Amino acid sequence: EIVAAIEAMLDEKPKPLAGRRIIVTSGPTHEPIDPVRYIANRSSGKQGHAIAAALAKLGGDVRLVSGPVNIPDPAGVATTRVETAAQMKQAVESLLPADAAVFVAAVADWRTANAAGEKIKKVAGKGPPSLQMVENPDILAGIGHHAQRPGLVVGFAAETQDLIANAEAKLKKKGADFIVANDVSHESGIGPSGVMGGDRNKVRIVSRSGVEEWPEMGKDEVAARLAALIAERLQTVVV
Amino acid sequence: EIVAAIEAMLDEKPKPLAGRRIIVTSGPTHEPIDPVRYIANRSSGKQGHAIAAALAKLGGDVRLVSGPVNIPDPAGVATTRVETAAQMKQAVESLLPADAAVFVAAVADWRTANAAGEKIKKVAGKGPPSLQMVENPDILAGIGHHAQRPGLVVGFAAETQDLIANAEAKLKKKGADFIVANDVSHESGIGPSGVMGGDRNKVRIVSRSGVEEWPEMGKDEVAARLAALIAERLQTVVV
Repeated sequence: EIVAAIEAMLDEKPKPLAGRRIIVTSGPTHEPIDPVRYIANRSSGKQGHAIAAALAKLGGDVRLVSGPVNIPDPAGVATTRVETAAQMKQAVESLLPADAAVFVAAVADWRTANAAGEKIKKVAGKGPPSLQMVENPDILAGIGHHAQRPGLVVGFAAETQDLIANAEAKLKKKGADFIVANDVSHESGIGPSGVMGGDRNKVRIVSRSGVEEWPEMGKDEVAARLAALIAERLQTVVV
Repeated sequence: EIVAAIEAMLDEKPKPLAGRRIIVTSGPTHEPIDPVRYIANRSSGKQGHAIAAALAKLGGDVRLVSGPVNIPDPAGVATTRVETAAQMKQAVESLLPADAAVFVAAVADWRTANAAGEKIKKVAGKGPPSLQMVENPDILAGIGHHAQRPGLVVGFAAETQDLIANAEAKLKKKGADFIVANDVSHESGIGPSGVMGGDRNKVRIVSRSGVEEWPEMGKDEVAARLAALIAERLQTVVV
């Protein structure tokens, strides 16, 4: 940290993202079932927060929209905390227009059809409730096809199988410029606990021009490399 | 730990729980839907961990079984980390026999009938899945009626309505000696975020002899007072 502070003070490095507004989403969403229960995605927010920090380091005006996480807000980043997918969508839209948007959050695909206002009680002789679910808004697709679409839209795809096929389908359907695909299966071989919650990641960058495979590295390194890629792409994007 | 050990050696305070094994559960449980999604209860583990620490301070041989939380294991307490209700039940049973058991964890009442091995995908034209749920084992009732039932069994009841009626029903049905009932509704008036996740609590002690109402206080104070009550009761319990 001291090294980082000194580096920042002495920093003569170019700030390729100066003047660029970049929206980043991070963490899971929590979808309430009743006042004490919720449905969640596994996501520590580590990768998303690291990307927000890396973009800020390159001079970006970074706006982070984060679901419930237990890590601190990144330094130099304006952070909005939300809980549900609906709140995340609203927060992201309120930040438009932007030069780029990076959707790292593990947004719940579904929420319960009607969250109960009081705690659902166990009733003797009555079985458990069947949770009726409805589809959540697709935040990435919404922004990818938005009238105020940022010049660069990046999505994430966490899959346990058919990683590349799923990422390529997502690329087209969601109007993204590229998809960062990571394998979150137990077989990914990353760390004792895998990608989710861990500090390492192994991603593939899926774009219309093909699939680029990055070696396994720390989430901070993935973030720095992705921030550099975004800065490079933004220089060629007509805004 | 060394400091704690030295403090313990030099400690001249009475240790009314010396030689007593006490099981404490804390935190939520997470019930998997598929590799990336789960159902959870809102619980920070703060109250349960504080109770474990308070019992250890009184000399107890405390065994904490904790669901997924983001707070450190309490000093001087042997802690087992679990994720699901089934794992918590198994961990608790493996710790029997014990002199007392305090069930603070917010255990999920239900889990999904069959957790998917791969991530459930959204399929175009197909609606969201309906989550079929099955009842989880009732850990408190299981221990309350166990052949190796501890001499003192304490349950917690977090309710948003009918607090006392629910606690009294729980007392009888679960074979507990007393129930610590707390109101987790938004109307409880505790802190900006309420009891769940916050640092304060307001509880009622519901036993066969009646209802004792404690004033609002810090979770550490609730823990200290409850530990003293447990020590007092254990002196009169025939083991």
